Amino acid sequence: MALLPDLGTEIVIPGNAPPFATSCSPLVHDYLIEEEDGINDHGVVVKCAEIQSAISEGATSFLFTEYQYVGIFMIAFAILIFLFLGSVEGFSTKSQQCTFNKEKLCKPALATAIFSTVSFLLGAFTSVVSGFLGMKIATYANARTTLEARKGVGKAFITAFRSGAVMGFLLAANGLLVLYIAINLFKLYYGDDWEGLFEAITGYGLGGSSMALFGRVGGGIYTKAADVGADLVGKVIADNVGDNVGDIAGMGSDLFGSYAESSCAALVVASISSFGMTHDFTAMCYPLLISSMGILLFLCVCVGLWAGLIIGFVTEYYTSNAYSPVQDVADSCRTGAATNVIFGLALGYKSVIIPIFAIAISIFVSFSFAAMYGIAVAALGMLSTIATGLAIDAYGPISDNAGGIAEMAGMSHRIRERTDALDAAGNTTAAIGKGFAIGSAALVSLALFGAFVSRASISTVDVLTPKVFIGLIVGAMLPYWFSAMTMKSVGSAALKMVEEVRRQFNTIPGLMEGHAKPDYATCVKISTDASIKEMIPPGALVMLTPLIVGIFFGVETLSGVLAGSLVSGVQIAISASNTGGAWDNAKKYIEAGASEHARTLGPKGSEPHKAAVIGDTIGDPLKDTSGPSLNILIKLMAVESLVFAPFFATHGGLLFKL
Amino acid sequence: MALLPDLGTEIVIPGNAPPFATSCSPLVHDYLIEEEDGINDHGVVVKCAEIQSAISEGATSFLFTEYQYVGIFMIAFAILIFLFLGSVEGFSTKSQQCTFNKEKLCKPALATAIFSTVSFLLGAFTSVVSGFLGMKIATYANARTTLEARKGVGKAFITAFRSGAVMGFLLAANGLLVLYIAINLFKLYYGDDWEGLFEAITGYGLGGSSMALFGRVGGGIYTKAADVGADLVGKVIADNVGDNVGDIAGMGSDLFGSYAESSCAALVVASISSFGMTHDFTAMCYPLLISSMGILLFLCVCVGLWAGLIIGFVTEYYTSNAYSPVQDVADSCRTGAATNVIFGLALGYKSVIIPIFAIAISIFVSFSFAAMYGIAVAALGMLSTIATGLAIDAYGPISDNAGGIAEMAGMSHRIRERTDALDAAGNTTAAIGKGFAIGSAALVSLALFGAFVSRASISTVDVLTPKVFIGLIVGAMLPYWFSAMTMKSVGSAALKMVEEVRRQFNTIPGLMEGHAKPDYATCVKISTDASIKEMIPPGALVMLTPLIVGIFFGVETLSGVLAGSLVSGVQIAISASNTGGAWDNAKKYIEAGASEHARTLGPKGSEPHKAAVIGDTIGDPLKDTSGPSLNILIKLMAVESLVFAPFFATHGGLLFKL
Repeated sequence: MALLPDLGTEIVIPGNAPPFATSCSPLVHDYLIEEEDGINDHGVVVKCAEIQSAISEGATSFLFTEYQYVGIFMIAFAILIFLFLGSVEGFSTKSQQCTFNKEKLCKPALATAIFSTVSFLLGAFTSVVSGFLGMKIATYANARTTLEARKGVGKAFITAFRSGAVMGFLLAANGLLVLYIAINLFKLYYGDDWEGLFEAITGYGLGGSSMALFGRVGGGIYTKAADVGADLVGKVIADNVGDNVGDIAGMGSDLFGSYAESSCAALVVASISSFGMTHDFTAMCYPLLISSMGILLFLCVCVGLWAGLIIGFVTEYYTSNAYSPVQDVADSCRTGAATNVIFGLALGYKSVIIPIFAIAISIFVSFSFAAMYGIAVAALGMLSTIATGLAIDAYGPISDNAGGIAEMAGMSHRIRERTDALDAAGNTTAAIGKGFAIGSAALVSLALFGAFVSRASISTVDVLTPKVFIGLIVGAMLPYWFSAMTMKSVGSAALKMVEEVRRQFNTIPGLMEGHAKPDYATCVKISTDASIKEMIPPGALVMLTPLIVGIFFGVETLSGVLAGSLVSGVQIAISASNTGGAWDNAKKYIEAGASEHARTLGPKGSEPHKAAVIGDTIGDPLKDTSGPSLNILIKLMAVESLVFAPFFATHGGLLFKL
Repeated sequence: MALLPDLGTEIVIPGNAPPFATSCSPLVHDYLIEEEDGINDHGVVVKCAEIQSAISEGATSFLFTEYQYVGIFMIAFAILIFLFLGSVEGFSTKSQQCTFNKEKLCKPALATAIFSTVSFLLGAFTSVVSGFLGMKIATYANARTTLEARKGVGKAFITAFRSGAVMGFLLAANGLLVLYIAINLFKLYYGDDWEGLFEAITGYGLGGSSMALFGRVGGGIYTKAADVGADLVGKVIADNVGDNVGDIAGMGSDLFGSYAESSCAALVVASISSFGMTHDFTAMCYPLLISSMGILLFLCVCVGLWAGLIIGFVTEYYTSNAYSPVQDVADSCRTGAATNVIFGLALGYKSVIIPIFAIAISIFVSFSFAAMYGIAVAALGMLSTIATGLAIDAYGPISDNAGGIAEMAGMSHRIRERTDALDAAGNTTAAIGKGFAIGSAALVSLALFGAFVSRASISTVDVLTPKVFIGLIVGAMLPYWFSAMTMKSVGSAALKMVEEVRRQFNTIPGLMEGHAKPDYATCVKISTDASIKEMIPPGALVMLTPLIVGIFFGVETLSGVLAGSLVSGVQIAISASNTGGAWDNAKKYIEAGASEHARTLGPKGSEPHKAAVIGDTIGDPLKDTSGPSLNILIKLMAVESLVFAPFFATHGGLLFKL
């Protein structure tokens, strides 16, 4: 990649390339025949700027609407946290015996309740800020990338990638800063009561993840409904808004959540292990150091990073159209949409195998070195690349939108081809980013799960006790329930959008012939309403399950639910993301027609291409809504259980007490 | 159902029904306007008989080919069982101290090795006989149902249902008889050493299930490849053969396997609990009594039966086109194949929720009453309906084939409509049968898992130890790996079939116009070769995983794998079966056009209908190959682990011993 900037220069070569050019590698050759295109047309710049501000306004307005609704939920939940945790010792203000170091006195449960509530709100707020800033950066980058694409694909790539990098580093720094300040402020009260301090800090992870869940689900539904509208009436502002609120703001909040949770998990596990009792503040902050420096200090970090890379490579292999799996899927389009879907689903299932082995090995190795602390640190290792991860993740939607803007600004076909090339690479980088996110989610959840078990004072989680086993099987069912909800939501929202588009074609005279402008505002409103309304049930399922299970069935069953949803959710998340990515790239493979094989399947509009489009549409909710939200589901349920652990241990398990 | 025979009479009513007929219920009305159709045409009878014998020959020849290959595998595996179990005490012939009752002397491990091997072969043989007899009965019933359809749908229904019932009762009786004889013969050697006796008898379940696995996978691939061929060139013998070897012989072996395993599990658990040490032979045979009588003697049985019925009802609700879920899926075909697939997948995911709760509740209740023994008995309770289950299960393919024969024999359109009506009901009964099979598989596996843990002398299976957790996450991945293999196999076999059909159209002159006969033999050969070749890798995955994990990683990790594959496999199996069933019936709903809503989507060949056909094709491998084989996967791995438990406990866990 480092070579690209030098290649993507403004060298202008006439139509007939000189002999030396053909002797170069195909890559160099491609870049050499690029031309500057409409570089002096000021009208295009103005038009792009207009479109950009429309997208930015749309995205801002949607996010504000979303945050209003989620804000109410957050405040209600904050009150719940305060009441539940405060009730553990009947709102007493007396100091208590510490759980793990019986010789010491710890701060009262009421303090934990107050500080947990504060850090919950802080986490939610930081998550909102992360998502919002990400969206702002991305909308600026969209139009800029389009304009750079006039100078060549190399220039456009650099712009898109650097914008992603700015966003990644900003978000990582932001999350770290807030966490560091919060810990230091809380320390003023807690003193050397590490256990209490880091228990309270866990609320930060919960707040971050809760916001991320709503962001992912709401944004995911919005973007897919808009996408369907765009497929029917051509690129519309709503589609671009959707990409920015779903893929950028949602993902920013998500990765921030992962990062906050794994830091919290490492800190809590450290505080209740021997580290917390003997070591000083600097040693305790080791987890923060790792993530701020991204340096290999320690084997567990290496293991996590190694597993992350394996997952990344496997994901690339299964979703890039440069390798045989996607080409096979494309080839199966020859016999129709049905074989395309069967092969795509099988590809997704198959792509789970190696990542799961990588996760299993990293769990085993890191646990062997430093028990649960090792797992938390391995998760941080995977996330130490968070900035880069965000950068490559953000790159995809930025390129996609650049293409949309080029189309809306009426720029030439050649520019659209360049942004399409960037976008195909973007599908793979997005899938890799999702792979990292899922892998780290698995490790983070396990570490949080370990911390929960310690904090709830459970000694073993024995699968053979019926309490645990029923939890395990119901937990393994939750990702299916959640996916059913989100997929159905996307389907219903898309259906409404299709009906609206049909209505507009029937009632607005001249729309079919392109004389009249479509009514964009109604389309945006349908997307907004659908996503706000439909994000509530899946969100509530995730947020309420740990509470209901903990209160009525107790901590053993809850442990089962966490383990079950973790081991089942990871598989669905990986397979859904990869199936969706593969279908998208199989379609692009046919459209691009870059190889002889691809040309036998194309061109656009051929029967195999139609079959590929069907696969792509099915893949959208899988890869952009269900898949990525599942990884929040498993983390969120674990961190929520951890926050409420003292309450469940004291007052939970009502049904089994009868 | 008891009313149907009286309604489906030969009453002949002229075209204009008299006033009283319209005042009756629609059901009665439908039957009253039926007519006898071509009942005196002897040529049709001869033609049907010819087709029937061709199907019977084809099915017999395929099963013999399949059994030859599987036979080799079985013999190799029998040798493995003998060597592994014999090596536990170094092939010593001395009596040993019993594991659970330390005061007694038990028979040597070598005896267990010999008797386990014998009962393994016996189980495999009984399974083969069950599948083969089922196939024979079904092929006889096919043509007979077609001929009865000339007299009315009621007559045809009775024939199809009674044939299913004959098959069901025969198979249940067969399995029971062999088991009873085997126990009594083994008892001559073992005397009052119940522990050893029932450990050896476990091999019976393993043998039954191994055969069932190959039968389901091989038959499933065969039937689907043939199905695709039939869709292209019209009904062919291969398609009918496929239904008989896959849906009938495979399912017969499968339910026999479940039944044998749950009996064995209950017997083993009983032998190692207090029952076995204090009670007499009659009490020990209680499990056999339950299943032979199908009577409620005991609460756990009620619980199991109740859960089975809940699962049955939920399955019917989600897969019958009389209810809104399937109608919604059909409605989504309006906007194309993509929404149909999204809605269908979401339906399958959603249909998992209630069955899982039912299974969880039945586990909890039956465990609370009698620990693992309660669970085994609950599984038997669910399977006490095995005869009825088989009857309703077999009814579907019999009706389907009756339709095929009617078409090939050139019978009138009206007869085809009658068999189609039977077939639509058959899709739902098949889905209910699968629901029962999956629910009972979950309980059986859990009971076997419990028996394995006891026999391997593990005290707890703690999820929080890395050995168990990595087992859990890898175990949860196995159903995905397995599904990827089977789905890809079906896809590849179908692709080969499509190419062959295209080749025949291009090379056989007059085929396109219907003057020449297609080359059926090559089509049959392609199905046979593909299924024999493709059934080996998934079969090996299931059979070898417990061995590899046990030998290299030990019993704790194997426990994790069993728990993981159980909780994850159940979900995929239920959702795959129901999604497939729903798509199939959504297509039939549109084709039948029985309601005003359905008529807006049809007729055959309309865009919504085309979308529905795509969904149906995708559903085939899900509902007929992956789904049903997954439930064998979870049982088989559990019973295999149980058989090899003493070996793993003694010599296993090589890697962790380093």
